[in-house]
Amino acid sequence: MGTLVASCFVVVILETVWLYGGVAGAYVKYNTSAAVVEGKLNVHLVPHSHDDVGWLKTIDQYYVGSNNSIQGACVENVLDSVVEALSRDPNRKFIFAEMAFFQRWWLEQSPETKEQMRKLVNAGQLEFINGGWCMHDEATTHYIDMIDQTTLGHGLIKSQFNKVPRVGWQIDPFGHSAVQAYLLGAEVGFDSLHFARIDYQDRANRKNDKSLEVIWRGSKTFGSSSQIFTNAFPVHYSPPDGFDFEMSNDFEPVQDNILLYDYNVEKRVNDFISAAMTQANVTRTNHIMWTMGDDFQYQYAESWFKEMDKFVHYVNKDGRVNALYSTPSIYVDAKNAENGSWPLKTDDYFPYADSKDAYWTGYFTSRPALKRYVRMLSGYYLAARQLEFLVGRRSSGPSTYGLGDALGIAQHHDAVSGTAKQHTTNDYEKRLAVGASEAEAVVNNALSCLVSKKPGGQCSSSALNFSQCQLLNISFCPATEEDIPDGKSLVVVAYNSLGWNRTDVIRIPVTDSNFVVRDSSGNTIEAQFIDLDSVTINLRNFYVKAHLGLLPQQVPKYWLIFQVSIPPLGWSTYFISKAATEGESKSTVLSTLSNPQNDTIEVGPGDLKMLFSSTSGQLVRILNSKTGVDVPVQQSYLYYASSIGDPVDSQASGAYIFRPDGARPTIVSREVPLKVVRGPLVDEVHQQFSSWIYQVTRLYKDKEQADVEFTIGPIPTDDGVGKEVITQMTANMATEKTFYTDSNGRDFIKRVRDYRSDWSLTVTQPVAGNYYPINLGIFTKDNKTEFSVLVDRAVGGASIKDGQIELMLHRRILKDDRRGVGEALDEMVCIANNRTCKGLTVRGHYHIGISKAGEGARWRRTTGQEVYSPLVLAFAHEMEDWTASHVTIATTMDSSYSLPQNVALITLQELDDGSALLRLAHLYESGEDAEYSTLAKVELKKMFAGRMIKEVKEMSLSANQEKSEMKQMTWKVEVEVVAEPMPLRGGPVNVSDLVVELGPMEIRTFLLKF
Amino acid sequence: MGTLVASCFVVVILETVWLYGGVAGAYVKYNTSAAVVEGKLNVHLVPHSHDDVGWLKTIDQYYVGSNNSIQGACVENVLDSVVEALSRDPNRKFIFAEMAFFQRWWLEQSPETKEQMRKLVNAGQLEFINGGWCMHDEATTHYIDMIDQTTLGHGLIKSQFNKVPRVGWQIDPFGHSAVQAYLLGAEVGFDSLHFARIDYQDRANRKNDKSLEVIWRGSKTFGSSSQIFTNAFPVHYSPPDGFDFEMSNDFEPVQDNILLYDYNVEKRVNDFISAAMTQANVTRTNHIMWTMGDDFQYQYAESWFKEMDKFVHYVNKDGRVNALYSTPSIYVDAKNAENGSWPLKTDDYFPYADSKDAYWTGYFTSRPALKRYVRMLSGYYLAARQLEFLVGRRSSGPSTYGLGDALGIAQHHDAVSGTAKQHTTNDYEKRLAVGASEAEAVVNNALSCLVSKKPGGQCSSSALNFSQCQLLNISFCPATEEDIPDGKSLVVVAYNSLGWNRTDVIRIPVTDSNFVVRDSSGNTIEAQFIDLDSVTINLRNFYVKAHLGLLPQQVPKYWLIFQVSIPPLGWSTYFISKAATEGESKSTVLSTLSNPQNDTIEVGPGDLKMLFSSTSGQLVRILNSKTGVDVPVQQSYLYYASSIGDPVDSQASGAYIFRPDGARPTIVSREVPLKVVRGPLVDEVHQQFSSWIYQVTRLYKDKEQADVEFTIGPIPTDDGVGKEVITQMTANMATEKTFYTDSNGRDFIKRVRDYRSDWSLTVTQPVAGNYYPINLGIFTKDNKTEFSVLVDRAVGGASIKDGQIELMLHRRILKDDRRGVGEALDEMVCIANNRTCKGLTVRGHYHIGISKAGEGARWRRTTGQEVYSPLVLAFAHEMEDWTASHVTIATTMDSSYSLPQNVALITLQELDDGSALLRLAHLYESGEDAEYSTLAKVELKKMFAGRMIKEVKEMSLSANQEKSEMKQMTWKVEVEVVAEPMPLRGGPVNVSDLVVELGPMEIRTFLLKF
Repeated sequence: MGTLVASCFVVVILETVWLYGGVAGAYVKYNTSAAVVEGKLNVHLVPHSHDDVGWLKTIDQYYVGSNNSIQGACVENVLDSVVEALSRDPNRKFIFAEMAFFQRWWLEQSPETKEQMRKLVNAGQLEFINGGWCMHDEATTHYIDMIDQTTLGHGLIKSQFNKVPRVGWQIDPFGHSAVQAYLLGAEVGFDSLHFARIDYQDRANRKNDKSLEVIWRGSKTFGSSSQIFTNAFPVHYSPPDGFDFEMSNDFEPVQDNILLYDYNVEKRVNDFISAAMTQANVTRTNHIMWTMGDDFQYQYAESWFKEMDKFVHYVNKDGRVNALYSTPSIYVDAKNAENGSWPLKTDDYFPYADSKDAYWTGYFTSRPALKRYVRMLSGYYLAARQLEFLVGRRSSGPSTYGLGDALGIAQHHDAVSGTAKQHTTNDYEKRLAVGASEAEAVVNNALSCLVSKKPGGQCSSSALNFSQCQLLNISFCPATEEDIPDGKSLVVVAYNSLGWNRTDVIRIPVTDSNFVVRDSSGNTIEAQFIDLDSVTINLRNFYVKAHLGLLPQQVPKYWLIFQVSIPPLGWSTYFISKAATEGESKSTVLSTLSNPQNDTIEVGPGDLKMLFSSTSGQLVRILNSKTGVDVPVQQSYLYYASSIGDPVDSQASGAYIFRPDGARPTIVSREVPLKVVRGPLVDEVHQQFSSWIYQVTRLYKDKEQADVEFTIGPIPTDDGVGKEVITQMTANMATEKTFYTDSNGRDFIKRVRDYRSDWSLTVTQPVAGNYYPINLGIFTKDNKTEFSVLVDRAVGGASIKDGQIELMLHRRILKDDRRGVGEALDEMVCIANNRTCKGLTVRGHYHIGISKAGEGARWRRTTGQEVYSPLVLAFAHEMEDWTASHVTIATTMDSSYSLPQNVALITLQELDDGSALLRLAHLYESGEDAEYSTLAKVELKKMFAGRMIKEVKEMSLSANQEKSEMKQMTWKVEVEVVAEPMPLRGGPVNVSDLVVELGPMEIRTFLLKF
Repeated sequence: MGTLVASCFVVVILETVWLYGGVAGAYVKYNTSAAVVEGKLNVHLVPHSHDDVGWLKTIDQYYVGSNNSIQGACVENVLDSVVEALSRDPNRKFIFAEMAFFQRWWLEQSPETKEQMRKLVNAGQLEFINGGWCMHDEATTHYIDMIDQTTLGHGLIKSQFNKVPRVGWQIDPFGHSAVQAYLLGAEVGFDSLHFARIDYQDRANRKNDKSLEVIWRGSKTFGSSSQIFTNAFPVHYSPPDGFDFEMSNDFEPVQDNILLYDYNVEKRVNDFISAAMTQANVTRTNHIMWTMGDDFQYQYAESWFKEMDKFVHYVNKDGRVNALYSTPSIYVDAKNAENGSWPLKTDDYFPYADSKDAYWTGYFTSRPALKRYVRMLSGYYLAARQLEFLVGRRSSGPSTYGLGDALGIAQHHDAVSGTAKQHTTNDYEKRLAVGASEAEAVVNNALSCLVSKKPGGQCSSSALNFSQCQLLNISFCPATEEDIPDGKSLVVVAYNSLGWNRTDVIRIPVTDSNFVVRDSSGNTIEAQFIDLDSVTINLRNFYVKAHLGLLPQQVPKYWLIFQVSIPPLGWSTYFISKAATEGESKSTVLSTLSNPQNDTIEVGPGDLKMLFSSTSGQLVRILNSKTGVDVPVQQSYLYYASSIGDPVDSQASGAYIFRPDGARPTIVSREVPLKVVRGPLVDEVHQQFSSWIYQVTRLYKDKEQADVEFTIGPIPTDDGVGKEVITQMTANMATEKTFYTDSNGRDFIKRVRDYRSDWSLTVTQPVAGNYYPINLGIFTKDNKTEFSVLVDRAVGGASIKDGQIELMLHRRILKDDRRGVGEALDEMVCIANNRTCKGLTVRGHYHIGISKAGEGARWRRTTGQEVYSPLVLAFAHEMEDWTASHVTIATTMDSSYSLPQNVALITLQELDDGSALLRLAHLYESGEDAEYSTLAKVELKKMFAGRMIKEVKEMSLSANQEKSEMKQMTWKVEVEVVAEPMPLRGGPVNVSDLVVELGPMEIRTFLLKF
């Protein structure tokens, strides 16, 4: 009889009990009830899922789990399965952050599931943390957007669960801002802030001296009064290696069933303790936190909890360390209870690098068109909510909610950051466009009501057909291009959402130069016509087709320009009609083309002048004839060639990372064709830097600034080289490596080239490592002069040489930078069903101001508000006598009142219950301006003239709790700042006079009932 | 003011209701209660998970979800999440098949979960189908193993849930056997059988005439009395394209929330109906079944049920078709209720091809060592359970359960089939080895008891230290190699698990030739010594080290050979001792080397003779001097070069698929060195076909057969060519394309070369397409002679030319065949911590018999039982006088009784409750043998002599229901066989005489109580 030669194996005889009918099974009831144990190392297991509100897939694809070929991710599964898993064991816990996802889920649940979820929330098993609509980006977001999106999420939590999140959970954003720490942290009522991404050098340093956890005082103005306990993770927001239990992942489960092969309880307990000791070695106190989750994990939550149950059980049975289900709140309470002293941290955590050639400073600029769209709609959303409030929200029909939702989503750290895939970016833009369309209807309706003379504020929604022009920047505005019948006017209503009176210049495209402009009183005012340049016409032809799918029939010939003056929170009306007489048309001026006669050409109808070289076409100097400030300045466009990696480091430049190929940028052109257009209201300097860079500099009669309009693109890549385009302004100033950039459009932070205040920097990327995010502006100064530049969207900027400021305005890159997005940042715009595509052209503005040393803030703060909140223009064609039936000019405040110049109205919104949400922001930092950095007062009675204020309740920043109920944890810092001055803050609002006081940088939030 | 040029998107204004506080949510209560609807197309959604009991991962890795880098699969998750999902909605259903997995899960569950599961089972929400330990392979399994593993699973279901599975669910095995249909189908009590894999030509044909669903009569003997409704799926066991809802997959979810983007209810309903119509077009009646699942799916079951809920709801709302949660039982009930006629199917579904060059006939042979190990342990398990029964099961200590479990797992269609990854194969082998070790202890203990003369059957477990030798085939047996002290004996106890007396020859390795052998009565018997050949010594040196990690100290010099005779279900004892006198040693004979003196050499001490050419060394003819049968036969080794694909079809030969590179095999050698060893008991012909093929043919004095021992390997691949080695026997016979192969070692099925009875075959692979699985044997015949070959394990075999039989014995291949396993079938054996590895050498046997036409069955059936159930040998060294304290020869039956020659005892096993499971099998088909194909009788009283039988209950084949309770569905076939003879079956067992009658091929299963 034959037998075998079997292949190689080792015979191991196990003492197994293999029975199905006989001996009882191997059921183990795990003891998961552990709480904090004194005197032991406590490992806080914090179950979480990091759910990007769009990235590789769109938000809805992530929610429903479609498009899984890109990424297997379904947030509906996360929430479904977490509810199940938490319900199985009352000791299990979970934290959830992104309310845009939660809202989608919540709406679809049965009453039973909602009740189940409410129980879990009330029991502390599910804790909402962060709780904004998304986990916003911190570099490219504006503080008003951050507040709005946080308010949206916190409102949902409050209304559905009556809960107030305690934890800032910004685990993924690519660097962290001062405004996040103090404003969206402490002022929101958070006890702590947690994140994963800090500079690799910083992290190494902090691990070394156990300073990953700090007390962060993000505000110079507020100091310790707005501090927050901040926890930077030692590695990432994933668990220690080997403890990621997502179902689809490869991990070694705890196998405690002796009936199966590979029993490993002791080994896994040792693994756990070893990982805990590693972390304990870089952490103060007897508490460490394990972030038990990762991107879109817990899709089948039981897979995680099953393993964690076993670890809690067996690790605690072992007894060397204590493992417990926890949340960041519990963890921070434990830290606080230790009553120790913590390192102090000021300023911010920018820029972020994860290795020597990987500075995440590219995304400061990535997708500049999206960034601008978000910023433009941010200001528009603010104005639309004002108008919605002013006429009263409607119970049906269009509302501003959709835009708020879309903007909330767009603040996500892979949305406005420009780091999502193209199709996801399209989805963000579509949502914004849908929301904007609805808000536009709200604005049209509201303006119709407001300007109507009908008594009692009543107005029919169909009264008027206002239209607005979102594409004015490329000279597309059907309303102004239409024929204006003789004797009738094109009516332009301009709404001013600022709290003070405002003078501005309006530019609209028209087809003829035979127009006159009258103001609200019927007086003809000065107007100027400028020929439409061919760059704008070409843009219009291509992009209007790209947006609307059809080509406009006729092309306007001129820009019609006139100056307007609008009362605070009010409007004024202007009338454009055909000139009836020759004399009448004298008030309008066709601009003249200027021919240079000297070496330099001086431009500017007002105080601010610019001098250009007539030979090179380049800017030579800027001077203010009133203040006497005079600065030699050159300006040019350059580009960094995007690195595609090199033999030493394969890191390429990409959507996230800015890695120039060599340190020095290439200049686009040294000689620039120059065209100067002059007129009574504005002088324009047109410069063609290259076939793909066009610049128009505008100097207005009544503005002490230069407005620079750039048109960049398509960036050529036929040489196979990605390019990152900058404008560079080089002033003759001794700035000593120092410059200032804003934090989310709010505080200015001092930056020193090649330097970090927290550690001794090893410079590996002399350009990329000195880039900072800019949302409001950047400035440098020497002892005489301040040179300031304000921006219209988020950009990256730096001062690489003394006296120099550069802004990165556009990027087109041919390689992916291997941070997950998996696409090159190579934006295309297509027409004709994608048959004709071009690289994206970006048009935008920046604004240059020069001031005497110490006086720049005023220009920056005031102009900054104007840039953020442009006039809202609505057009209508006059059918009957407009003036007879309409109010042509008005303020909605007391007619004699305006807000102080140092206060901005940043929210005015009617809520579901009819009450109003009001936010007022002091615009100046402590010491920033001699006159304005003082206590400001707002008189609510005058502001809400004609309304009776019944109740004023001061709230936390996100309006989810009363200010008086907010508690602050006490923390000690190792080295206390000596004699920190007491910050100036407004006192309680007196019920009788209803005056709101605001100290420097103070933002106060109120709920008003009328 | 600047605005933007946004990138390309289309603005779509949706009428959305975006509210979180206001309008009610979008919760939808899905109506999932649909049942069968008359007059509509009913789409039976059958949720299932196909869970391989080992394949790319080991069974336990699959169960716990470790090693997920290979495959993300965790059966624990499947069962956990299915319980949750079923509990959420009483209309949801799920079927589960693999009880080896279920048992693992069941043992770990809490009492509450067990109760929950019992409720689901009782409510019909969870239905066990198939219900064996695994979903066994059908080509390479032995029917006894199939019965055993099915019994194991069915027993668990019965004991825990009191349920009897109704459905055969063999969805994945690679072809389907007749024994599966009638024996493991109808005789088990299944109403239906379902599978996915049939020949692609067959499938196309059956789709064309709607004959995928048939009534299958797998047994010639039983005909319609063992028929089964059989459903071959139109595509695969996955859902229609686009309806796979596994969480990690890319599918388009039904999106019915109008608040989200991509609402698609109508589109998805249309998709559903379209897929249903496609299937309806190839299916009879108004019922189609969708297999809603795939390999290791339902890891998060809710992902599936969530989508199916929506489809049932919206499709039925649409109303064009009716969708319902269903199971195969419900589906088959509906089919049966239609009362139509169905196509008739006989024989089997082998071989299986999925495309023209992809015949799944390689796995018939893949991993021949594993296949032999499984077969060897199958016979051993049978014997061990007998012995366990005979002495009574112990409540603790070793049992045969572990071996039964390991064998149950090993029957899986990616286990014994040889199509698992190497590490998984190692795991199967380890489990078998662990089980075998434990069974060996059972056998040793039991033999100790049985042979002990202690009164009352009492015996202490430590009485004796028997040892056994699993590696006898490579001459490794420490017990026989040890020194035998003067005056003492090496005791050999041989146990015969057959029901009849048996004469056999024992071969053991010894170190000296100075031994004599005495029988149980003390009489010296004839013995023969043969020098150990160097091939065996080399094998021994390498493989013993590979198995045990150490090299045996000394090498035996001889095989000691002697003939034994053992009573039925009994034992006999033989004593080997040093020859005390010269005379005594005369009974032992050193074999002589024969030198050829003629052109041919005749070999064989008995009736059967073989003639070899002394020039070429090749076999020339075989003749039987008693029967006068005389057949010219050549025999040689050849190999097919494994195809690596070609430009027309990239299909390579691999673990599953046999694709030779060109049709003709290469002959290994035409001239073969020949060595003939002669002696009184056996003549041996040693032939060295090449450096890697060695063959010994043994002709015994008292056996009318040639036993061929082959040693093949390492197959050389240094030429870069994979090789598939065959032995080819070419007889001068006119066989007319026809040959016969067994079905799972039971029935013989007629095969005709290049022909299928069910359709007109297009021959694309003239060799691979004519291969069939062989477990018992293969034979051809002409009008004079039958030429039969029996095998010791599963192999592939064919008759490619008339008169020719070939067996594929070993395969070594360098490419993967792209059916998932992802490894080349290139088995290595290693020593010295994997530092020295060689390709696997396989040693085995086949047996050649020649008979007069019509007389071959008797040799095949009897010898087949001897091959399957070799003698169990146990060795002990005599300490005191053995004969004084031991019974040296006995049967456990009545001493005058033995089973009829046409009946085999295939199960005798003590169950948990002390009752005995008895299976008796008639060995002959109807008409197979004139004398033996008749009603046989077994007298239970004599068989269980000394025991009082209290109760005899006849059971279904898997012993999970009483035979009398079994119901059979009635089915009509389109063309009824005319005058089918009534099959002969035994009648009920009379309580008084307890005689069991068995008709041809009948297997009867009883539970006995004593």
